[in-house]
Amino acid sequence: MRAGLFISFEGTEGCGKSTQIQRLAARLSGLGKSVLLTREPGGTEIGEQLRELLQFSQAGHAMCAETELLLFTASRAQLVREKILPALDTGTIVLADRFLDSTTVYQGVARRLDPAQVHAINRFAVGHCLPAVTFILDLDPTAARARLTSRAGAPDRMENQPTAFYDAVRSGYLALASEPDPRFHLLDAARSADELEAAIWQEIQSRLT
Amino acid sequence: MRAGLFISFEGTEGCGKSTQIQRLAARLSGLGKSVLLTREPGGTEIGEQLRELLQFSQAGHAMCAETELLLFTASRAQLVREKILPALDTGTIVLADRFLDSTTVYQGVARRLDPAQVHAINRFAVGHCLPAVTFILDLDPTAARARLTSRAGAPDRMENQPTAFYDAVRSGYLALASEPDPRFHLLDAARSADELEAAIWQEIQSRLT
Repeated sequence: MRAGLFISFEGTEGCGKSTQIQRLAARLSGLGKSVLLTREPGGTEIGEQLRELLQFSQAGHAMCAETELLLFTASRAQLVREKILPALDTGTIVLADRFLDSTTVYQGVARRLDPAQVHAINRFAVGHCLPAVTFILDLDPTAARARLTSRAGAPDRMENQPTAFYDAVRSGYLALASEPDPRFHLLDAARSADELEAAIWQEIQSRLT
Repeated sequence: MRAGLFISFEGTEGCGKSTQIQRLAARLSGLGKSVLLTREPGGTEIGEQLRELLQFSQAGHAMCAETELLLFTASRAQLVREKILPALDTGTIVLADRFLDSTTVYQGVARRLDPAQVHAINRFAVGHCLPAVTFILDLDPTAARARLTSRAGAPDRMENQPTAFYDAVRSGYLALASEPDPRFHLLDAARSADELEAAIWQEIQSRLT
């Protein structure tokens, strides 16, 4: 067992992951805990270059689904070995804004790549590094869309997909949440940020040493 | 069956692949054939950005083996769907300077990643797009090294590995060549460029329609 605690946050764009991660990080820091925040793709020098290619590069418009999956998992493989595992080894709490479940859902379910192949590549990329807790923030795609359009800035490539894509993403997350894996915690993200924060804290508090 | 012919060239750095590809391309063009040359990583806009990251970026120094494999296969997945398959569909002869066997050997054998996982990711990346003919140019690592040091320019990240790495690469290619797969053609690359060219042409000539 590693000394730290690995917590990932999943859900569609606009579900409120970032807000909840910031609030949890603030609470943990307030208790004197060492906290590492990661985002995907990115979080390492290599990963940030891949983020640019995946989300903002003109070259991304021609990207096929297989390439997209391999680039997301490449970024994650580097993040795990360069940042997450060393942090967990020194007792740090890692809060990940997306991790391997995003690939299962976005590239597997929504892009319709073969689930067994997606699973195999996911496991190759992360090795034995799985979150202890994964919060899935569930939100109706229309509500998520409304939150996104109120944000500043143009949408990136992954935010600019047809509606059916986000419906598939939501279904994918709900399917994951229904699996008997105890790391998944499904949360209704239509609630207020304060209510969500309280639900997340209740789950995490008991795990702190 | 696709109308074109897909031929890949494999071997360690300095084995003479580039020279032989150029000579074969010239012969085929001289017969009025349409020829596409590809190189790895690269060959597409996305792939060329990955080539920069894999071979020349400062960020590459921290790259773990898993990330390296996923980036090489990402570049290949894009190359297959954006360039190779469309070319083969229109009857073009594709000459590839490296393809999936490089990953089997460099990341699988030389970097000691799990062969079954490497195989699975390779197949995910290329789908059903396999070369009809693969020439493996075999050369003693010391001789290959001597050829490389006589080249202009500084070696890139993949050319700058310890001797044991290139010994493992050679063993890996010889192991592939000993498989019962008829696409593999092992050639002694210590011979003159003219002799090699003649051997390659003898194999290809019979396949032209």
